[in-house]
Amino acid sequence: MKVLVPDDLGLEALADSTTIEAVRYEPGEPWPADHVDAPVVVVGFEHADAIGARFAELTDLRLVQTLNAGYEQWLRHLPDGVMLSNGRGAHGGSTAEWTVAVLLAIYRELPTFAADQAEGVWRPRHTETLINKRVVVLGAGDLGANLAARLAPFEAEVTLVGRSARPGVVALREVDALLPTADVVVAMLPDSDETRHLVDAGFLAKLGDGAVVVNAGRGSAVDPEALLAELVSGRLRAALDVTEPEPLPAGHPLWSAPGLILTPHVAGSTAGAWERAWQVARRQIDAYVAGGTPPNLVAGQPH
Amino acid sequence: MKVLVPDDLGLEALADSTTIEAVRYEPGEPWPADHVDAPVVVVGFEHADAIGARFAELTDLRLVQTLNAGYEQWLRHLPDGVMLSNGRGAHGGSTAEWTVAVLLAIYRELPTFAADQAEGVWRPRHTETLINKRVVVLGAGDLGANLAARLAPFEAEVTLVGRSARPGVVALREVDALLPTADVVVAMLPDSDETRHLVDAGFLAKLGDGAVVVNAGRGSAVDPEALLAELVSGRLRAALDVTEPEPLPAGHPLWSAPGLILTPHVAGSTAGAWERAWQVARRQIDAYVAGGTPPNLVAGQPH
Repeated sequence: MKVLVPDDLGLEALADSTTIEAVRYEPGEPWPADHVDAPVVVVGFEHADAIGARFAELTDLRLVQTLNAGYEQWLRHLPDGVMLSNGRGAHGGSTAEWTVAVLLAIYRELPTFAADQAEGVWRPRHTETLINKRVVVLGAGDLGANLAARLAPFEAEVTLVGRSARPGVVALREVDALLPTADVVVAMLPDSDETRHLVDAGFLAKLGDGAVVVNAGRGSAVDPEALLAELVSGRLRAALDVTEPEPLPAGHPLWSAPGLILTPHVAGSTAGAWERAWQVARRQIDAYVAGGTPPNLVAGQPH
Repeated sequence: MKVLVPDDLGLEALADSTTIEAVRYEPGEPWPADHVDAPVVVVGFEHADAIGARFAELTDLRLVQTLNAGYEQWLRHLPDGVMLSNGRGAHGGSTAEWTVAVLLAIYRELPTFAADQAEGVWRPRHTETLINKRVVVLGAGDLGANLAARLAPFEAEVTLVGRSARPGVVALREVDALLPTADVVVAMLPDSDETRHLVDAGFLAKLGDGAVVVNAGRGSAVDPEALLAELVSGRLRAALDVTEPEPLPAGHPLWSAPGLILTPHVAGSTAGAWERAWQVARRQIDAYVAGGTPPNLVAGQPH
């Protein structure tokens, strides 16, 4: 079965399959003329509009497979009856790892000790710890589950918050009750009308003094003005890997906000991330080629 | 049963016991005159010589209970037939947490991103990750077990190295075989003739380029000159919470060594550490008072 792939890593990842013929396409350019009958196309991190607009040119398209976990941008381009499957499972570990990294840096005061080290001064003191911290995770998908697994041995108490209640998951509409006693709130949310500025001034005001706000999902989940006010007043602390707008422009006041760790959307950007994404994609395509449904199906019905 | 305690937290921790009479003593001063018949004395982080020299003045001493995990300094003061029990279990979590904190800071390049943030520059790039890293832990006791538990969900491959081989533990004499493929070596060793400068120039030379050396035990385990040479050459990276000498004096070349995270012996110094130490001590004393053996017995035979 023909599979259109957007990079050479994809050719490698599928090379040893006896049932898949991987064909390279150039994102943003026309499909390779002899291969518009490919039933499967894999899409990467490029802007969806340039590629999605050409889906209609594929004469026998059955499955669009993404390499990232976020897939919202592909939905409006998906032709009727075509399945969409995502890269869930490839990136959760890396993003959860970043989240634990920044929480530990904050609680164990690594930036302050680094300043002491630069000064050449031995200045011991007690710090906070993750032990017994109450962590509320907005987003009960792959990212949230990965984070919960990593926090468990640190003796932190994790509550996952999802769209609707299910065993182990609190419904988003009941999140307010969790905020006054939360030590940490981690947003791991996709971008949608429902999630935009979910963490706004009213949400932040319900958090106790010294609480830590982390955004490791999409920048739109956090109202930047509201967060900035809480940081400038010194009441809350934060770590952001994503921002609104993004990239954060030069001179934006968040750059110099106190009590903030800011990284440039790198939570999922670790060595081996692409290889892991292709491993996940390969499993989805293999399942489809074998006559089954991709385990990561997110839209479209199997037929 | 009378129990001599070195701080007010001890009085609180034992206050609700119906079988224990906690009596405060002042470390470095004579025992309270009416209570030299106390069978149990709890010792803290003070220098052992000042207190240990007075053990012989206690007329009915049966159990010395330490609040910290390290207990070597008490052994030479322990009268014949007296049991020694330590604070194992109270500090392992905090020290293991510090170790994960510095490993994640190194691999996720938090110090470099902090410099970009200070500069106000959005500069994304791929970093390393703990995923698939091979971590060799020197010390298979409470600290090592705590670290292994915390690293497991990060998909790191942990090997514990102890004095002698047992299931899940590699013998120290076989450690050389592990070094060429190790990404991280963590020393969590007590101070002893056997462990002094275990990590020396020859040991370090066996590690591959870019390996990370962590010391979260006692400073004496690492030869500071040998480590300094590897840091200055840029071949290895390191994180030290303990040093030789300690505190590290002003102007010592380690202060400005490249590729080093240096903190002032704070790996175990987190909020609640003393409370947790007293909880552990209480369990040991309760077991003894009930006619049993303290679970953390490290020297002396029960009688």
